[in-house]
Amino acid sequence: MPAIKSINHVAVVVDDMEKSLAFWRDALGIELHELRNVPAEKSQVAFLPLAGAEVELVMPTTDDSGIAKYLAKRGPGMHHICLEVDDIEGMMSQLREKSIRLINEEPRISDDGKKYAFIHPESTGGVLVELYQISA
Amino acid sequence: MPAIKSINHVAVVVDDMEKSLAFWRDALGIELHELRNVPAEKSQVAFLPLAGAEVELVMPTTDDSGIAKYLAKRGPGMHHICLEVDDIEGMMSQLREKSIRLINEEPRISDDGKKYAFIHPESTGGVLVELYQISA
Repeated sequence: MPAIKSINHVAVVVDDMEKSLAFWRDALGIELHELRNVPAEKSQVAFLPLAGAEVELVMPTTDDSGIAKYLAKRGPGMHHICLEVDDIEGMMSQLREKSIRLINEEPRISDDGKKYAFIHPESTGGVLVELYQISA
Repeated sequence: MPAIKSINHVAVVVDDMEKSLAFWRDALGIELHELRNVPAEKSQVAFLPLAGAEVELVMPTTDDSGIAKYLAKRGPGMHHICLEVDDIEGMMSQLREKSIRLINEEPRISDDGKKYAFIHPESTGGVLVELYQISA
């Protein structure tokens, strides 16, 4: 049976990275591990790891991506929760059997080789949920 | 210096607990640790612990609480992120010095003795952030 292991990260969509870092890094004191442009996602992402799950701040760098449209429609705030799973294909099959709507029919592969897929908020009670398999 | 230790939980506001459990517990397979009425919050809360941070599903049980109004206005979805801190009073002082707006001026105490306080979304980039001190 595929199993959810942990929350990997919580992603926050932001419209002003410096202003957001003034809160998460400077006021709360969480260390900024990396601020990276992710062209594949048309975003700039700030990674703020904690013990266990990390906070990610995601700022769209174009206005035509899914996250840019989300920001335009709903404003800044929480965007998705990412769950680490040990067997992403197995979990996706299990979800399909339960009639859960997936956004990606097959896992996508990130630049660093992680498999990921999103579950549609329609099937989760309004939460965009990402599944993430880190090790094979 | 007060320090953020980890994400303690992510809270999801739901309008139909059984339907939400059909996703989080039955489809994803996360174990339901406890389903509890929390009269002080006028809510029913499902606790779904994972390694590290847990998922909490919160369903208002009246229509006059803050979370009931949130649900009526914005619909079901992510509600807040809770960060564990080692020194909540110290952190609240630090935030005040940085002109971060707090919802609670003093920590509140839960039934089981934990200190908690909320930071206003206005100062966080649209995210309701809870601070939680578990041990003294």
